[in-house]
Amino acid sequence: MKVLVHIDEAEQWRDALAERLPEAEVITSAAPPEQRRQADYLAVWKPPEALLREPGALKGIVNLGAGVDALLNNPGLPEGVPIVKLRDAGMGELIGDYVRYGLLHFQRDFDRYRRQQHAGEWREHAVMDKADWPVGVLGLGAIGAKVAAMVADDGFPVHGWSRTPKALDGITCHHGDDGLEALLGRISTLVLLLPDTPATRHLIDARALSLLPEGASLINPGRGTLIDEAALLAALGPVDDAGSVGRLRGALLDAFPREPLPEASPLWRHPRVWITPHMAGPTPLGAALDQVAEALRAFEAGEVQDTVDPNAGY
Amino acid sequence: MKVLVHIDEAEQWRDALAERLPEAEVITSAAPPEQRRQADYLAVWKPPEALLREPGALKGIVNLGAGVDALLNNPGLPEGVPIVKLRDAGMGELIGDYVRYGLLHFQRDFDRYRRQQHAGEWREHAVMDKADWPVGVLGLGAIGAKVAAMVADDGFPVHGWSRTPKALDGITCHHGDDGLEALLGRISTLVLLLPDTPATRHLIDARALSLLPEGASLINPGRGTLIDEAALLAALGPVDDAGSVGRLRGALLDAFPREPLPEASPLWRHPRVWITPHMAGPTPLGAALDQVAEALRAFEAGEVQDTVDPNAGY
Repeated sequence: MKVLVHIDEAEQWRDALAERLPEAEVITSAAPPEQRRQADYLAVWKPPEALLREPGALKGIVNLGAGVDALLNNPGLPEGVPIVKLRDAGMGELIGDYVRYGLLHFQRDFDRYRRQQHAGEWREHAVMDKADWPVGVLGLGAIGAKVAAMVADDGFPVHGWSRTPKALDGITCHHGDDGLEALLGRISTLVLLLPDTPATRHLIDARALSLLPEGASLINPGRGTLIDEAALLAALGPVDDAGSVGRLRGALLDAFPREPLPEASPLWRHPRVWITPHMAGPTPLGAALDQVAEALRAFEAGEVQDTVDPNAGY
Repeated sequence: MKVLVHIDEAEQWRDALAERLPEAEVITSAAPPEQRRQADYLAVWKPPEALLREPGALKGIVNLGAGVDALLNNPGLPEGVPIVKLRDAGMGELIGDYVRYGLLHFQRDFDRYRRQQHAGEWREHAVMDKADWPVGVLGLGAIGAKVAAMVADDGFPVHGWSRTPKALDGITCHHGDDGLEALLGRISTLVLLLPDTPATRHLIDARALSLLPEGASLINPGRGTLIDEAALLAALGPVDDAGSVGRLRGALLDAFPREPLPEASPLWRHPRVWITPHMAGPTPLGAALDQVAEALRAFEAGEVQDTVDPNAGY
C-alpha cells in the first residue's frame, strides 16, 4: 500500500510510520505529483483542498487528530471514502491536565491572587471546598469522558452532558436541550469538549451564559466555534483589572474560530481572559502512530470500524 | 476542663469546640482576665506573648496548625507544658492541589503563555511529558508525604528528601546532605515542605540553587525562612518580561519570612514570581476541631502522644 502523510513535521511521521508498516510505501505531500496521485491512503491533518483531489483511487483517509471538522468542511474531500480519526491517544490526559489547571485557577483563586500581586495586595480568600464546586463537562466522547473522570477523581462533583443519553460511573449525566439548561444552572465551572458541528456552533450564546450562576467560569480546550464571542465578552463585563465583574468571573480559552487569534481581538487584552495557543491537546506522536498503523492495516484487511459519519460531523 | 481558644474568628471555633466537648468550658481570649488565668488548656494559633504567660497551671497546649515555629519562638511559652500540633487535616490535599497547580503552571508552559498573551504572541511550545519532569519534594512529614504521593499519582517521577532515611511507596527517597545534592541536580521543579528549624533556615541558598538544572522552577507552600531571598532573586535573573531568564525559570511562593510580604520587596514586581498570600494550606475547620477535641480528651486521660519536641523544632 502507498500512504501519503500530510501534517507539520511530516518527515518525522513518515519515517516513524514506515518503521511500523514495513509493507507500506510512505511518502509526504512534498513528494512529486506523480507519486502523490498513486496514494491508496491519506494520513492527514488539515490538508489543502488540492491534495485531497489528487489521488486517483483512494481507499481510506486517517485523520491525524480527534477533531474532523476541518476535514469534513474541506470542499476537496472525495465522497464515499471512509475516514478514520485518531481516538484519544494520551490526548485525554493532556486535556485533562489543562482542565485541572483551569479548575484550580478559579477554585483556589489564583486568578484573583495574580491580579492582587499586580496591585501589591496581600489578601487571602476563603477556600471553597472542591465538593462545593460542581463542574459541567459538555461533550462525553472519548476525551470528554476521560476528562470528566479525571476531574471527578480529583474530588469535584461532575455533571456531564451529551446530545444522546449516556451513563458514566461517578458522573451525573444530562442530555438534550432540557438537560443542558439543568446543567448550566448548577455548575461553578463550564468545560467545553464538544466537536464542531452545525448543532454545536455558538451553543454557548448569550442565553446559555445567562443561565450560569453568578461568578461561574469557563474553560474551552475544545473548539472555538462553540462560543459566541460577543456574548462571551458581554458576560465577562468591562475590561478592567479592578475585579469588578459581569456574570462570568473569567475564561481560560485554548481554541478560537480563527487561529492564530487575530491581533484585533479584545480577548487578548481582557484581564480575566487567559489565552493559550491551541496547546491543550497535542497528539503524542508514538501513540498516534500506533493508531495510524492499526487503521491502515484494518483498511487493507477490510476490517475497518468506527468510521466517521460525515452527516453527524464526528 | 477549661479551654482558652485564640485564633482568628475564635468565636466560631469556641462554639464548634463546645459542641464536640460538652464536658469542657470553652472561652476565647476576649474573655475577662480572671477567666483566662484559670485555663487548663490553650488551643491557639500564634498567641500574643502575654496570653501565654497568664494561666496559672497549664496542662497542655494545642497548636491550631501544623507549623509550630511561631509558638516555639514565642518568649512567653511556659517551659515543660506538653504541646500537641494539628496533623494534616485535609491540609495535605489542599497543599497538594496548590503544588499540582504550580507543576502544571511550569510543565505546561502557562507561565510563558501568560507572558505571550501580554505581548499578543501566539506561539505553541512542545509539551514535555510528565514522565520526563522529575519533581523534588523536600520534607516528608505528614504533609510532604501526602503531597509527594499526589504528585506521583499524577504521573510525575518524584524524588523526596528528609533529614533521616525514609521509605515511601512510589517515591525515590533521599536523605542527608549528600542526598540533597543528588536530588537538586536531577529535578525540574523543587517543592519545599520543610518545617522552619535552625537546620532548615536558608537551606535554599545560592549554592543549593546553583545545583538545580538550568530552567528549573520552585514552589514554596512551606515556610518563608527556607529560602535566601537575595540568592533567589539572583538565580531568577533580571526583572524583565521578555523571557530572558537566569538559572531559575520561575517561582510560585506562598510563604515569606515577613508576612504580609513587605511592599518594598522586589518579589512583588518580578514577572516570573507568582505570589500568593499564605493560602496553600488553610486548616479545614471541621477536621481540625475533631483533632483538637481528641487531643484535649487525651490530655485529660493522660494518654497524649506525639507531643512536639521543642529542641527538634517540630
